[in-house]
Amino acid sequence: MALKAQVLYDFTAEPGNNELTVKEGETLTITNQHIGGGWIEAQNSRGEIGLVPEDYIESNVLKHPNFSSFSSSIIQISKWRGSNNNWASNPEGTQTGKTAPDPWSSVSQGHPQAYQGPGAEDDEWDDEWDDMKSTGGYAESESGDGGGIQRGGAHATSMKISLNKFPGFSKSGPELYLLCKQLTKGKDKLPIYIGEVGPVWFYPETQLDCVVADPKKGSKMYGLKSYIEYQITPSTTNRPVNHRYKHFDWLYERLLDKFGSAIPIPSLPDKQVTGRFEEEFIKMRMERLQGWMSRMCRHPVVSSSEVFQLFLTYKDEKEWKMGKRKAEKDETVGVMIFSTIEPEAPDIDLIEVDQKCEQFSRFTKAMDDGVKEILTVGHEHWKRCTGPLPKEYQRIGKAFQNLSSVFNSSGYQGESTLTDAMTAAGKTYEEIAQMFAEQPKKDLHFLMETNNEYKGLLGCFPDTIGVHKAAIDKVKEGDKLVATSKITPHEKVTMAKRVSVMSYALQAEMNHFHSNRIYDYNRVMQLYLEEQVKFYETIAAKLRQAHGQFTTM
Amino acid sequence: MALKAQVLYDFTAEPGNNELTVKEGETLTITNQHIGGGWIEAQNSRGEIGLVPEDYIESNVLKHPNFSSFSSSIIQISKWRGSNNNWASNPEGTQTGKTAPDPWSSVSQGHPQAYQGPGAEDDEWDDEWDDMKSTGGYAESESGDGGGIQRGGAHATSMKISLNKFPGFSKSGPELYLLCKQLTKGKDKLPIYIGEVGPVWFYPETQLDCVVADPKKGSKMYGLKSYIEYQITPSTTNRPVNHRYKHFDWLYERLLDKFGSAIPIPSLPDKQVTGRFEEEFIKMRMERLQGWMSRMCRHPVVSSSEVFQLFLTYKDEKEWKMGKRKAEKDETVGVMIFSTIEPEAPDIDLIEVDQKCEQFSRFTKAMDDGVKEILTVGHEHWKRCTGPLPKEYQRIGKAFQNLSSVFNSSGYQGESTLTDAMTAAGKTYEEIAQMFAEQPKKDLHFLMETNNEYKGLLGCFPDTIGVHKAAIDKVKEGDKLVATSKITPHEKVTMAKRVSVMSYALQAEMNHFHSNRIYDYNRVMQLYLEEQVKFYETIAAKLRQAHGQFTTM
Repeated sequence: MALKAQVLYDFTAEPGNNELTVKEGETLTITNQHIGGGWIEAQNSRGEIGLVPEDYIESNVLKHPNFSSFSSSIIQISKWRGSNNNWASNPEGTQTGKTAPDPWSSVSQGHPQAYQGPGAEDDEWDDEWDDMKSTGGYAESESGDGGGIQRGGAHATSMKISLNKFPGFSKSGPELYLLCKQLTKGKDKLPIYIGEVGPVWFYPETQLDCVVADPKKGSKMYGLKSYIEYQITPSTTNRPVNHRYKHFDWLYERLLDKFGSAIPIPSLPDKQVTGRFEEEFIKMRMERLQGWMSRMCRHPVVSSSEVFQLFLTYKDEKEWKMGKRKAEKDETVGVMIFSTIEPEAPDIDLIEVDQKCEQFSRFTKAMDDGVKEILTVGHEHWKRCTGPLPKEYQRIGKAFQNLSSVFNSSGYQGESTLTDAMTAAGKTYEEIAQMFAEQPKKDLHFLMETNNEYKGLLGCFPDTIGVHKAAIDKVKEGDKLVATSKITPHEKVTMAKRVSVMSYALQAEMNHFHSNRIYDYNRVMQLYLEEQVKFYETIAAKLRQAHGQFTTM
Repeated sequence: MALKAQVLYDFTAEPGNNELTVKEGETLTITNQHIGGGWIEAQNSRGEIGLVPEDYIESNVLKHPNFSSFSSSIIQISKWRGSNNNWASNPEGTQTGKTAPDPWSSVSQGHPQAYQGPGAEDDEWDDEWDDMKSTGGYAESESGDGGGIQRGGAHATSMKISLNKFPGFSKSGPELYLLCKQLTKGKDKLPIYIGEVGPVWFYPETQLDCVVADPKKGSKMYGLKSYIEYQITPSTTNRPVNHRYKHFDWLYERLLDKFGSAIPIPSLPDKQVTGRFEEEFIKMRMERLQGWMSRMCRHPVVSSSEVFQLFLTYKDEKEWKMGKRKAEKDETVGVMIFSTIEPEAPDIDLIEVDQKCEQFSRFTKAMDDGVKEILTVGHEHWKRCTGPLPKEYQRIGKAFQNLSSVFNSSGYQGESTLTDAMTAAGKTYEEIAQMFAEQPKKDLHFLMETNNEYKGLLGCFPDTIGVHKAAIDKVKEGDKLVATSKITPHEKVTMAKRVSVMSYALQAEMNHFHSNRIYDYNRVMQLYLEEQVKFYETIAAKLRQAHGQFTTM
């Protein structure tokens, strides 16, 4: 007897990937449940056969007693990317999840794994239908608010680390650090120095960098599923390592967990993109992964962290897996990162801490607005440059050429100089049309990418700053808390010292941000203007040549 | 008792001209019927007082028994400009009209004179509310088909001289010339030579030209009505003469009457224009009157004609009036112009005549399409360059400047180089916005004006060519006409000779057209491209300067 299954959630097949589109409530016949990798093969009522994520359907055979929370887990997972779940702020949950060997452990960490079946190896869940989709530039979006930029989105606008959602006094917020009995010991200390511009992180002598290149298509499950692997070569070892998008995603989650309270960790280029231009998409994703990696490399704290070094320099599969497990067990995550920070400067009083925090909050908000304005304007400009403008120059060119060929039919002597010149002028305008259409990729693209990166980065600040504000609020309540015996007078003093440490961290991070910002905007504006100059000069030169063909008679 | 009058037709007052807007059917009280110049002063039911064209109202006092056809005349007049009335093709009507001293005489010539009252002097009818209105460039029209070009319109697209509307054999068509007993004698012969390019008119050694300049506002009727007088200085005498628009219009009518069957006489810049920018309008009209005059000066037949010379070189009012009267009595008008043409070449057979005529017809039609395409495209381009494009560059400029001022608020050291550079870049894009908005006036304007002129000129060809086609058809019927005794065998021979003369005239005119066309398009394309080169070079230079302000650090 054929096995039947109920579809629990809508699933849209990726074309060319042997998948089957199914709707919630539909009944399927399972034709092969031993595909593996979280997939089963099933047939729908119209006789179509294809792969469906195991977790999207329900059948008695698949329903294992251990997964009684199955449905609710799936819902949690599928809504995860767009939700406001406070997933990273629940250290207890994280700890529990991490220590438990069950495959759902990472749900509480917010790891998407709808496609991880009970039997799948930890490393083998698949996100490749995301990998294979594409955006296609800024111009394709209908949205007017710069929404053409696929990167970022819900995922990018917030790091989801806000801790101030717990109105009562509990240890789940910044108090975890402010009041913890014992600070982390050992080698992982993060010093802060006072430099020319104020508090700064410790910067290594040579700045790490890496090259993301050579995307290669791999496949697994006997060719049923395919994925892209990128080659990453760090400047330190010059030895390439390979990673798939999901490994980047894993790294991002680790960095966010570990540093997110102190350092804005920008999102990866968005997975949730649609389109058909595979090659262009892979190129775009690679470029953005490169941008992300370069930014991480440039951050002295991130780039020197163990997990980041693991990602860039692991020697074999065994080292990678061991390193992964170690990173996932790291307990110095969330606000506890502040326990590793050691400013080499006297404590700052609360008023100054508060003022600095407010200043950074205002600045990042204002810059976020400015960046979004540029993205909106740039998006409009991109559309015009690739849409109506080349069409118009094309039409001008055609009109000149058409008139030229009419002239050519006059039968009048000595017509050819004019008609040749007019044809040349017409062709020149057609060339200009082409130039207009291609120009945005040469200049506006980089201006947009940089601003888009900054939009992502600035989107992380509200959460990072939120951690600080929550801590400041707590310290402000110090007297009251002592009076009501919620904390001891000694704890009050400790809290004040620790919020000063947090402020140094924030200042160091802002100074890092400013110095990078100045560098990035100088560079991108130069590139943009340089290409713009070339563009207009080339047009002028072409028109000058066309002009020379006309005679004064 | 107050005199009452009924309004026959809607009339819209020109602001600032003491006029009164009235609606058809309204009852007015006449407050002064002795204003003169075709005007009466009247008061409406709301007590408003102002001038109304006498002919737009009906009262017992004004209604003279001689003007029983009053209403229908008015309708004829007011619809004239847009109608297909075959006014110039009725030589009998024209002759009658011209010899009769009644003020409506010129109705049959199509002369608009709704504002000429019974008592007005011949020279004093007023068209100045047309003179005082304005277009305002190509960009103001809503129409997508290049309709922004006010000049031309219904009036420009046709000379209304088509003679082929008389299907029967009558003497009102080209037969008037083909069969006339005696050709014009005397000094006004128009020779045609065979030049390098084929049949050509006789060209004088020095080409006449003139400068239209110095528009001056004049007034009459004690300042109640104002008009613009232009100063025209011919290159021959270098002595300026003054003319109002209506004098140009009179000249146009004379030239059309006299030469229209053989030479396309382009319309004057349209009177029927609306808008408020008086100065701009006067400038535009002057420029177009200059264009029209230059084109007429360049035509060897037109420029050497008595009426044209009168217009340019009359010495005093008396000479002008006498010349006018003489010109109006000229009988060598319509198809009779061909009777003055003397080709110095053997007769051409009908087949060749027919082929040439077809060829010119095809060419002028094709060029008309080509010119209209350029006008449409140019119109669109004008709109974009003065509308969305500068707005966009403005927004880009503002976005850079806004981001710059956010950066300026960072409180970070060493910010000023970047913020200064970004502000400069932003201002540069604002300058570029301004440049885009102003550029069409510097280049596209002339391309449009030239093509617009050609559109007007080409609009005359169907009628001119129509005269020839009608003549060819008549000659083709020769045998049949002889067989049915409609004409004699001798007349058949005469007709064939005369259609050959007509063909020489058409060929000479086409060769004149081609040589002017090649000159005009070379000149305007050079000017256009030269200005375009300057434009893009200036932009490149500005951007290069902005680029230089960024540092590589």
